[in-house]
Amino acid sequence: MHIEKIRLYENREDVTLTTYLIDDSTELMNGKKRPAIIICPGGAYMSCSDREAEPVALRFAAMGYHTFVLKYSTYFKGKLVVPDLNQELLVQEHCQYPNPMRDIGKSMLIIKEQEEVWLIDTEKIAICGFSAGAHNCAMYATHWNSPLLTDYFQKPAEMMRPSAVILGYTLSDYIFMKNSEKDELQHLVFEHSNTAFLGNKNPDNETFELVSPVKWVTKNTPPMFLWGTASDELVPVQHTIKLADALAQNKVPFAMHIFEDGNHGLSLATQASAQFQSQIDTTAAKWVELAEKWLEKRFALPLTPGL
Amino acid sequence: MHIEKIRLYENREDVTLTTYLIDDSTELMNGKKRPAIIICPGGAYMSCSDREAEPVALRFAAMGYHTFVLKYSTYFKGKLVVPDLNQELLVQEHCQYPNPMRDIGKSMLIIKEQEEVWLIDTEKIAICGFSAGAHNCAMYATHWNSPLLTDYFQKPAEMMRPSAVILGYTLSDYIFMKNSEKDELQHLVFEHSNTAFLGNKNPDNETFELVSPVKWVTKNTPPMFLWGTASDELVPVQHTIKLADALAQNKVPFAMHIFEDGNHGLSLATQASAQFQSQIDTTAAKWVELAEKWLEKRFALPLTPGL
Repeated sequence: MHIEKIRLYENREDVTLTTYLIDDSTELMNGKKRPAIIICPGGAYMSCSDREAEPVALRFAAMGYHTFVLKYSTYFKGKLVVPDLNQELLVQEHCQYPNPMRDIGKSMLIIKEQEEVWLIDTEKIAICGFSAGAHNCAMYATHWNSPLLTDYFQKPAEMMRPSAVILGYTLSDYIFMKNSEKDELQHLVFEHSNTAFLGNKNPDNETFELVSPVKWVTKNTPPMFLWGTASDELVPVQHTIKLADALAQNKVPFAMHIFEDGNHGLSLATQASAQFQSQIDTTAAKWVELAEKWLEKRFALPLTPGL
Repeated sequence: MHIEKIRLYENREDVTLTTYLIDDSTELMNGKKRPAIIICPGGAYMSCSDREAEPVALRFAAMGYHTFVLKYSTYFKGKLVVPDLNQELLVQEHCQYPNPMRDIGKSMLIIKEQEEVWLIDTEKIAICGFSAGAHNCAMYATHWNSPLLTDYFQKPAEMMRPSAVILGYTLSDYIFMKNSEKDELQHLVFEHSNTAFLGNKNPDNETFELVSPVKWVTKNTPPMFLWGTASDELVPVQHTIKLADALAQNKVPFAMHIFEDGNHGLSLATQASAQFQSQIDTTAAKWVELAEKWLEKRFALPLTPGL
């Protein structure tokens, strides 16, 4: 395995793509290219959680795919800081929309540039996110052909298109989030996240619509695998359901698995991604096997027939 | 993840231990130590198969364990060579018993020396092998307290003891192997492997008994997880059954899973460890989940209670 932490932008330390590249072998793919998965951890656009980074990358690498962890632009620049929620955040530019989404675009281009060196099947690059990272992936999946990306990178849309999207406990509808009942903690996390991502703790509805993937789903949105828990008390499961509804309306292929129990932020829901016992849930952990089968439909490795 | 290929002996390139060390994080184990698994690939003591190396290491790393791939002493010194079975092998010293078993001992000591740097829970080090690699692990598991290891390394037996052993399609009884019906291919592979491992294509029964783990199981043999396929045409499944029988007689805790279908050498039995379609078997692939649960009984990570 080749591990390498790559800066997306030479002058920034905080935005990095870490490779988990599977060694080629004459006894395995023998020079043939593998699909790739880009993992976007969550963290309310404040940081990127390690719990949704390497453990997830290793699990997908164990399926036979090259994986990448993207630490995209966040308020605390990749460092885990637990902010004092009672104190207002200063506005910062680097982490605001559309920068986090563009970080995915930049990663896509870097990976495609390394096609021959890393043996990447560039027709099969998926993005996989959790929480805010899932939101970032959902935004990317509904904007890959937008001038926000194609003009910015001066690349044709097909260079930017992800082949498949896996979203865990995503946020998808900011208007719904704004209007839904929130306890004090939810309210403060929402405000802080808005300051980080939108430069304003209480943006107008027009801004919220801009960053609500449910509003941007079209028939060109790539296939999605959605999962979450009905008992999520931080990001209501309706975000997942509403996104599935939009996919269904637009006849985009998708799967959705809602588990009854489980807190927000389960990641793999196994010991491998847990710090606390409560972050393990053997039922919700089934999402990984379900996603594995779903991916195989599209990403099955080109093995040699017979023996 | 920290990947590092370590020479077991400075003057030899062919015997290496490759680390798959999981990054520590304040959001995960936060400085606490993890159990470790040493993987021994198969290859008839002629070579070490890549199909039973990195793909397996990644799957166990995805469970939250530090993993290591040991390329132990083999005839072709780690290089994949398909020998002409019709030509006799010259006798070589470096790959002969008990060298491959001592390579496991040396790995155990290296890993324990790095306890604090790598954050290894030295009370929880398992060995996991396939085919000849499983035989090597079974030999080690029945000889960890033998002078062959303790005198050789000048270490107390408890330093050498593995905590758990996972064996896929193992060889365990050379007398049975010698006497069992063999087709031409099996016969030639057996002879070549004997030349590599025992320095003689047709050793006497005393030699065969020395290297038959079934003869050496005692109540001090560590717990084992055994799996294989009833339709294995290269190493008959009786090797697994006989070893289980010896464990039962000695009241050593064990699990055994024999799947009806599947060729020799399935490894993970998924696309991740396959070159050919025939190396995938979705039923036999269940061994990994069964082993995961079995390991968790002993190796569950020391997570923080509550949240």
